[in-house]
Amino acid sequence: MALDRVKALVFDVFGTVVDWRSSIAREVDDFAARHGLALDGQQFALDWRALYQPAMDKVRQGRMGFVKLDVLHRMNLDELLARHGIAGLAEAEIDHLNNAWHRLDPWPDAVPGLNRLHGKYILGTMSNGNVRLMVDMAKRAGLPWDVILGAEVSRSYKPQPETYLTGVDYLSMQPDEVMLVAAHNGDLVAASKCGLATGFVARPDEYGPAQSRDTRAEHDFDVVADSFLDLADKLGC
Amino acid sequence: MALDRVKALVFDVFGTVVDWRSSIAREVDDFAARHGLALDGQQFALDWRALYQPAMDKVRQGRMGFVKLDVLHRMNLDELLARHGIAGLAEAEIDHLNNAWHRLDPWPDAVPGLNRLHGKYILGTMSNGNVRLMVDMAKRAGLPWDVILGAEVSRSYKPQPETYLTGVDYLSMQPDEVMLVAAHNGDLVAASKCGLATGFVARPDEYGPAQSRDTRAEHDFDVVADSFLDLADKLGC
Repeated sequence: MALDRVKALVFDVFGTVVDWRSSIAREVDDFAARHGLALDGQQFALDWRALYQPAMDKVRQGRMGFVKLDVLHRMNLDELLARHGIAGLAEAEIDHLNNAWHRLDPWPDAVPGLNRLHGKYILGTMSNGNVRLMVDMAKRAGLPWDVILGAEVSRSYKPQPETYLTGVDYLSMQPDEVMLVAAHNGDLVAASKCGLATGFVARPDEYGPAQSRDTRAEHDFDVVADSFLDLADKLGC
Repeated sequence: MALDRVKALVFDVFGTVVDWRSSIAREVDDFAARHGLALDGQQFALDWRALYQPAMDKVRQGRMGFVKLDVLHRMNLDELLARHGIAGLAEAEIDHLNNAWHRLDPWPDAVPGLNRLHGKYILGTMSNGNVRLMVDMAKRAGLPWDVILGAEVSRSYKPQPETYLTGVDYLSMQPDEVMLVAAHNGDLVAASKCGLATGFVARPDEYGPAQSRDTRAEHDFDVVADSFLDLADKLGC
């Protein structure tokens, strides 16, 4: 694909831009300490994330109308708390924990890499996270997004084609003028089928030391990088 | 209204944040000089803008499905060029002139004011301009938006209630947690009817020395300011 046609980079966020596992683990550990609960933050983070795709599948398959990811995260949190026999917590406390997804820390190379890319490209999110989640995260972490695209503004969840293509339409671009940057092979393959350019950035520690999938690019993506700084180098920024 | 509940400021853009008249006049003068045309940039800008509300009315009244403001601007430009008997220009040249709306200059106080407000509030657009127009303008002018809301993401044109209320929903807030900032009384009255807080910033030179309307706040808005710096002062930023 002709990379000189690319005018906008849109990013998968969870795992690609931010380290959700460490951030959620830290918040869960704080939460457990505050309430005298025996919870393993790392395991809780993985368990919470394991409910993510099945919850979105309900929307993708039409078993549930579109709801924001905040709502799905909360359904999943309620399920996990029940699984641990935790009950009777104040609504505000549960809500605060649910909003931990708004307070995820970026990988160390993410902000400096994005700041370099920002001079040459329009930068947007292409995440399944909802708009407010993305805005809160960006303000806290200093992510220089020009535009919030993705699930909520398309009322669909990746890898549904309309998520990518609605974003392209909001940008008033052709699909090949937009590159999806992601650490996940499946996300990039789906975007590629919609005509977008593709950039893989490896995040082999996203799920921790035992991570077995998405440790490397498994397809012929337009750019393959090992960090956002490497991506900026490879895109001439 | 309780201003301490406000968490997000959303802005009317044309006239409130940017000086469309001077910017369009400059671009039209450049265009005329390049093509050896006798056009008065100031008058052309006013004439182009005069077609703005009637074009949106077609969408508001259901006589036309929703189209981006870029498309309406182009319809209006074609009409104006025809009125001046101008024909035979290259498509790329007309397109470039139409995109002059993406290259509007901010009022001098806008960027410093927004930068002060950005620390305390989520800042968004609440404009009838489309997403790409807003993004291009912001990147060129350095407008620190956290999120692009308004017409395109609601598929409606202000002052239709759904434009404001869809923006509030994307922010996952209550209407009174969002303040519309605008230089236009009618826009603020419409937002107020939807439950939003209101901030009037006077732009008495928007239409030039002969401006007769919107020279001052005509209603009891929550904040009335004479610049974005004054707005920042009054909001404690």
